Amino acid sequence: MVSFKDACATIEKHILQIPLDIEEVKLQDALERTIAEDVYTTHPYPLFRNSTMDGIAVKYSGNITSWKVVGQEAAGEYVDVPYEDENSAVSIMTGAKLPDWADTVIPIEDIDAAQDMVMLKTSALYKPQMNIREPGSDRAAGDFVLARGTYLAPRHFHLLASCGCTWVKVYKKLKVGILATGNELLPVSAIPEGDKIIITNSSFLAAAVNSCNLEYVDFGIAKDDLTSLRNLITKILSSDINVLLTTGGVSAGLFDFLPKVFAECGVDVQFHKINIKPGKPTFFGIHNAAGKAKPVIGLPGNPVSASVNFEMLLRPAFARRYNVPLRRSFTAQFKGTLQKNDGKRYFGRARLLPDAGKTIVVPLASQKSGNFFEYADAECLFVMEEGRRELIDGDVVECIRI
Amino acid sequence: MVSFKDACATIEKHILQIPLDIEEVKLQDALERTIAEDVYTTHPYPLFRNSTMDGIAVKYSGNITSWKVVGQEAAGEYVDVPYEDENSAVSIMTGAKLPDWADTVIPIEDIDAAQDMVMLKTSALYKPQMNIREPGSDRAAGDFVLARGTYLAPRHFHLLASCGCTWVKVYKKLKVGILATGNELLPVSAIPEGDKIIITNSSFLAAAVNSCNLEYVDFGIAKDDLTSLRNLITKILSSDINVLLTTGGVSAGLFDFLPKVFAECGVDVQFHKINIKPGKPTFFGIHNAAGKAKPVIGLPGNPVSASVNFEMLLRPAFARRYNVPLRRSFTAQFKGTLQKNDGKRYFGRARLLPDAGKTIVVPLASQKSGNFFEYADAECLFVMEEGRRELIDGDVVECIRI
Repeated sequence: MVSFKDACATIEKHILQIPLDIEEVKLQDALERTIAEDVYTTHPYPLFRNSTMDGIAVKYSGNITSWKVVGQEAAGEYVDVPYEDENSAVSIMTGAKLPDWADTVIPIEDIDAAQDMVMLKTSALYKPQMNIREPGSDRAAGDFVLARGTYLAPRHFHLLASCGCTWVKVYKKLKVGILATGNELLPVSAIPEGDKIIITNSSFLAAAVNSCNLEYVDFGIAKDDLTSLRNLITKILSSDINVLLTTGGVSAGLFDFLPKVFAECGVDVQFHKINIKPGKPTFFGIHNAAGKAKPVIGLPGNPVSASVNFEMLLRPAFARRYNVPLRRSFTAQFKGTLQKNDGKRYFGRARLLPDAGKTIVVPLASQKSGNFFEYADAECLFVMEEGRRELIDGDVVECIRI
Repeated sequence: MVSFKDACATIEKHILQIPLDIEEVKLQDALERTIAEDVYTTHPYPLFRNSTMDGIAVKYSGNITSWKVVGQEAAGEYVDVPYEDENSAVSIMTGAKLPDWADTVIPIEDIDAAQDMVMLKTSALYKPQMNIREPGSDRAAGDFVLARGTYLAPRHFHLLASCGCTWVKVYKKLKVGILATGNELLPVSAIPEGDKIIITNSSFLAAAVNSCNLEYVDFGIAKDDLTSLRNLITKILSSDINVLLTTGGVSAGLFDFLPKVFAECGVDVQFHKINIKPGKPTFFGIHNAAGKAKPVIGLPGNPVSASVNFEMLLRPAFARRYNVPLRRSFTAQFKGTLQKNDGKRYFGRARLLPDAGKTIVVPLASQKSGNFFEYADAECLFVMEEGRRELIDGDVVECIRI
């Protein structure tokens, strides 16, 4: 049995070692993907000297405070207005290119107009070079502006568009296989009867994998039969998946065949059983074949156990692989009392109550690892560390949003 | 000019009034959608009396501490093992149905086996009814378990699967039209030259709309021409979009035709100009036709202004419409000094430095509303309120992750 910390480190190490392929996607499909190329500017920013304001452009002279408008510059409609004398001004719009001779822009709010003359308001600030963006003042041509490995949020899309990235190289999504095991399992479409139950882990894992921006392949439900499990898992491991997640078959029951089957299929066990609750029976191994190392994670069959394992062990590793910021940890004040009588790290399910600037975390009534109704209601997990035996009102606990 | 608070309230009011259509999607496509139906259980949970542990099932008797194993119950493989006497036990797996006569499960860790007998360890706890899940103990048949309007996270998928939701009714994504205006604009595929620039707002808005789980329709780039703008916007407003976002053309320039065009197209202005920086020129109106009220938001052309407006005015309203939790506000300690000389609410761009349990917010060097390179680098916005004229080292400021 390994500690939670060691289990996390081992899983993360192996997930980080999976090589990521690169694919090109259209700019509009690059949101929430991780860019696989450095981005450089293709030209200076701005490309040309332009106005930051709507107003008039003039050649600065400290003595002159009224001008004759001799032309007009609209954004995208540059005309070469000739310089007449120091009283010349052009009406200019935000973003419009300045005539070569103009060096200062006065905002429209700071001038009064009378006939064809404009006059500086006495209250107005008037300084040379003001309200002008010089070519290359934001970035020069060829500047490095975005690093390979950045997880793309909306805020990056101006930059990508302006650098002409109609297509963007991004890291491909890892393909995660999902296999449920258990003779008691029925597909979601079935009506449960007798001693059978609907499989819910596969639907949870599909959603969880998608929410990590990865792809899943659902391999359905396998029976607890040694030979057929061995054949199926051999076939699955030789497919193009990068990671295999199974549920069930890793605990202490007579038909918990998976650790044995994994070994027979050439999976090198890294650990089996973690000092946590729920989720203790979890198996982790590596299948090496054809130069590829595929992590194999045998999750428990209990729905809450499988979910907590995914959130605590797998999501952080996948997020790290793709540089996805995970902002879900926080501390809160515990409400109620809770005891445990072992040295496992406990992940409870809870709801949150805002309370005058503090956050209160309230454990759900049922902490049973089979009760997925309560799990659906949980806003977060809270942590009761290995060495802790009791939580009481007001204790500060670590929480993880789910 | 309206206050920021009033602008938010007005936009939110109108976004919340847009009726949402309902569509059915497959369970695996329902992640991050908002469910449009209440969910009830179809059967009791558990459906049958079963074991929570791997071990033996017995009929409790205080005096008996050793048993003869007379049968086996595997999950999903119920066999009717007849009761022999009070020394009878069946080997039982987690999740397996119990024989009618058995009322107590002893975990495998708490028994010793010798020949065909099993004995209770002296250290073991032994109580009647232990380690058994009774039918309906989690939920009864027909129980209400998930409310219409819930935004679906992975944690809801066990419940959905177990209730047989192979298809899920969800609220349709609003369709948001995006139109860029300006004679200076070139598409992303063009090479900028002369006084032209690449349009970046449309790519930002497409990503931003997608990140709100909405659909967009990109109507491209329109010239600053009254007649053609009027025709185009009339056409766009008669299409099946629910909301129109435009960029450019709402400021004080001679060719900022949009407010006039909107009025001519029958858009009732709700406000024009907000007491904020950046993003002051923003227009908001409602187009009523064929019984539909379509919000029309004229965003400024400056990339940072358009982005800040989206984040501060539109994202919260869309999130509220779909019950998406937005957890992006926090407070941090300001580092540096910043002055302003007006009463606008200022949204600065900044990066974050963790520092011994505190978060430090450091404004980016350039706070220019045209510099989208700095905007891409920003991790958050920070707020300098209307009445505040200065921020200094250590001031606590409100921040919003972007």
